[in-house]
Amino acid sequence: MALMLLNRHTTWALQQSSRIFAGGFRGISQVAAKIDMEFDYDGPLMKTEVPGPRSRELMKQLNGIQNAEAVHFFCNYEESRGNYLVDADGNRMLDLYSQISSIPIGYSHPSLIKLLQQPQNLSTFVNRPALGILPPENFAEKLKESLLSVAPKGLSQVVTMSCGSCSNENAFKTIFMWYRVSKSYMDALGGWSLLKVGYRENIHFLFAFQPPGCPEYSMLSFMGAFHGRTMGCLATTHSKAIHKLDIPSFDWPIAPFPRLQYPLEDFVRENEQEEARCLEEVEDLIVKYRKKNKVVAGIIVEPIQSEGGDNHASDDFFRKLRNIARKHGCGFLLDEVQTGGGCTGKFWAHEHWGLEDPADVLTFSKKMMTGGFFHKEEFRANAPYRIFNTWLGEPSKNLLLAEVISVIKREDLLSNVTHAGKVLLMGLLELQSRYPHLISRARGRGTFCSFDTPNDATRNKLIEIARNKGVVLGGSGDRSIRFRPTLVFRDHHAHLFLNIFSDILAAFK
Amino acid sequence: MALMLLNRHTTWALQQSSRIFAGGFRGISQVAAKIDMEFDYDGPLMKTEVPGPRSRELMKQLNGIQNAEAVHFFCNYEESRGNYLVDADGNRMLDLYSQISSIPIGYSHPSLIKLLQQPQNLSTFVNRPALGILPPENFAEKLKESLLSVAPKGLSQVVTMSCGSCSNENAFKTIFMWYRVSKSYMDALGGWSLLKVGYRENIHFLFAFQPPGCPEYSMLSFMGAFHGRTMGCLATTHSKAIHKLDIPSFDWPIAPFPRLQYPLEDFVRENEQEEARCLEEVEDLIVKYRKKNKVVAGIIVEPIQSEGGDNHASDDFFRKLRNIARKHGCGFLLDEVQTGGGCTGKFWAHEHWGLEDPADVLTFSKKMMTGGFFHKEEFRANAPYRIFNTWLGEPSKNLLLAEVISVIKREDLLSNVTHAGKVLLMGLLELQSRYPHLISRARGRGTFCSFDTPNDATRNKLIEIARNKGVVLGGSGDRSIRFRPTLVFRDHHAHLFLNIFSDILAAFK
Repeated sequence: MALMLLNRHTTWALQQSSRIFAGGFRGISQVAAKIDMEFDYDGPLMKTEVPGPRSRELMKQLNGIQNAEAVHFFCNYEESRGNYLVDADGNRMLDLYSQISSIPIGYSHPSLIKLLQQPQNLSTFVNRPALGILPPENFAEKLKESLLSVAPKGLSQVVTMSCGSCSNENAFKTIFMWYRVSKSYMDALGGWSLLKVGYRENIHFLFAFQPPGCPEYSMLSFMGAFHGRTMGCLATTHSKAIHKLDIPSFDWPIAPFPRLQYPLEDFVRENEQEEARCLEEVEDLIVKYRKKNKVVAGIIVEPIQSEGGDNHASDDFFRKLRNIARKHGCGFLLDEVQTGGGCTGKFWAHEHWGLEDPADVLTFSKKMMTGGFFHKEEFRANAPYRIFNTWLGEPSKNLLLAEVISVIKREDLLSNVTHAGKVLLMGLLELQSRYPHLISRARGRGTFCSFDTPNDATRNKLIEIARNKGVVLGGSGDRSIRFRPTLVFRDHHAHLFLNIFSDILAAFK
Repeated sequence: MALMLLNRHTTWALQQSSRIFAGGFRGISQVAAKIDMEFDYDGPLMKTEVPGPRSRELMKQLNGIQNAEAVHFFCNYEESRGNYLVDADGNRMLDLYSQISSIPIGYSHPSLIKLLQQPQNLSTFVNRPALGILPPENFAEKLKESLLSVAPKGLSQVVTMSCGSCSNENAFKTIFMWYRVSKSYMDALGGWSLLKVGYRENIHFLFAFQPPGCPEYSMLSFMGAFHGRTMGCLATTHSKAIHKLDIPSFDWPIAPFPRLQYPLEDFVRENEQEEARCLEEVEDLIVKYRKKNKVVAGIIVEPIQSEGGDNHASDDFFRKLRNIARKHGCGFLLDEVQTGGGCTGKFWAHEHWGLEDPADVLTFSKKMMTGGFFHKEEFRANAPYRIFNTWLGEPSKNLLLAEVISVIKREDLLSNVTHAGKVLLMGLLELQSRYPHLISRARGRGTFCSFDTPNDATRNKLIEIARNKGVVLGGSGDRSIRFRPTLVFRDHHAHLFLNIFSDILAAFK
């Protein structure tokens, strides 16, 4: 079916791009020859506006069941392939958002389909175990094949979870428990000894919510950060007010995140000062909260603030931040839920910093198919059932992930991301130079690129127009457009997008 | 393979039971004839002690990756069928714990296997969408076939989540948001109007963690309750201190849960008084926390406290509690994560109360394959992205659930649960009368049964012996043994268990 569609509509992309070239865009002239014939389409194919009549009908239905106002359109995932998302009205779009950055190797990848078809794997999808007490025989083996084969430096331990929020929640707990154990001065307060002498005797401490049973530890986070929406996570999430409105929160410290000026080479001194200011504030907050008896047990940060508007800081900023965490005895938690899995050109975004000891704990989800976190051995829960829930992730996700990682290695997709990302970013910079009133601050690492628009309304209009021209884009922050393609997004996809988008910008009013 | 094993070991159960009968147990004399030949084994088959050498070897491996001290043994899920769990050493056990109550219709159910084998379903397992923005075409249809076909009375809305904790976290948020909207007096404080006038202008309220942006609302929960382990949930979980130790918490009210005396018919007046005392305390706490400016926006309760020790209260208690919630304007949230899905003989445990308006919000997970919550229309999020995350559950789980519900209806499994549950409870009461020094407070609804042992050590020893005799049991609270079989647990499984357990009790020292 995919191939039939392919043959039928082969010429669309070329027609599109030649039309656009006629419009005068010459910066990116190469339509790449390589097409993943096996499982990718060769270009967008639009039949209706998006959302089309079928999607709009389905929205009404769904809206009777739940608030469906966030739905963009409905999808036909059976027909979606590679980098192309097909909607319920038969429109086929180049997908640069990939389900909020959560599809690693494209839709309907043949290797994953094959995995499902193997009879020996059926049980894994049907019999979901309580992994903490009754794991399958091959559990450790699959963890080694999948997650541990890409473990960040120094983080030998891994625990799986069902989603990103649960990963961060449990990473917080891991850090709080570690903090209690690691701070010998707490022993004087009867803290750690609580666990040693048995739990039941001390139950009154815990239920009264008083220290030392439930200490008033805090996690330091950054303005503009997004770490999830459950109540612990939400206390560290500060990307949009709507996420937090009406929900009680913890009083935890929030530091400013650097607001870099672009182009970076023109603002070296200003950006250094800005980063120094933020780091100073981090240290001040640690001291301030210690005085308030809300000790900062950990610092959580994204290598690139993703939901909050694709806010980057320099590698040097993160190296210094890591040192501050160490200096003050705080656990250092990297949230790589969105940046992890290869989209920056390295498997984990923090690898760009070149640190020997990059983190104490690192959380993942999205492209990794399963949630979870890596951590150092000294952060291990010191008793069973302390980091626990019924499912603790799912073996079928580990199975899929093992195959995804194998494809990433086999097809050298990190190099692909680096290369395609360069094409994309170069193109964006070119467009920025031609349309400075529409595009600014073009930035990115790998294909994890973005640019700013003048305002929210312009951004949303550009996203809408692009969608109707067959390109799915996502927003981040209050005026940015973010690129979150799959790892099989190749140079020719970048060219295709740039040609279409150039046309849009030229015609934009 | 399953059938081969069946033939080879057919005689084990009968040998076992006749040996036990010789030991003198006559209360339950019928070994049922009906065996689900298609996908169930006919009895336990033990080859080694449990954990056996292979499991112990695997534990060592896993313990190098994460704290594996909670692991009971490793499983061979491919060989597990129906009510029987096969371990990595080839031991086959009657499973009355079913992965902490999360396997609805037994292992490797042929209907679910078939579902996986249908080519049109492959995409659903491979292409996981961001459901809140890009749902599959059949999303509303599958919700109707699955969750909405068993929606609790009055709860027309449903949102899916990935696990039980996320379900409760988002149910809390739903109640907090509803509370803000529903309480017109908040308008005077600028509360609800915050959302109306736009978010960005009010961002300072939210980030400062000050009312009215992030109000100090609270959820009232009960001593002994378990509602999950993420930080919001954990503030309402009070079953074991180890869950809460070292983790910061909210100051939210905790009411006593009735501690009923058994047999119920001998303690009618005492139990009524006990329940009245607890209800009075609930009202006192609501008043007290209102005065503290930590308004109780909602009450969360399990129809049967499950992790906390299988603590039951009367239907009348819950009817009165529901009235208290209504009287004080608190959202009433039923956590049916463990009690839901049919194991009490009704699809939801609260149906036993016979209420017209049983709840405002109800959470589920485990046997439902997906997490999530039902709620009344007036509890709908009033703007998109307020209840949201990347995945919001998973369509493949809805697909499996639709089939599970179809099997439950087709095979009338609720009647089966009621019947098999009676056999089980009658047998437990019989054993209690013969071994009162070992078994007390036998209680249950459907197959959701339990009894108390004299202490933690005896309980754990009984569980261990049972396991080595081929029966997997679970504990709850500090001295209870809980039964959480699948919905295809039938009379003959109850007889088989009772025979084996009678033998264990007779020999127990």
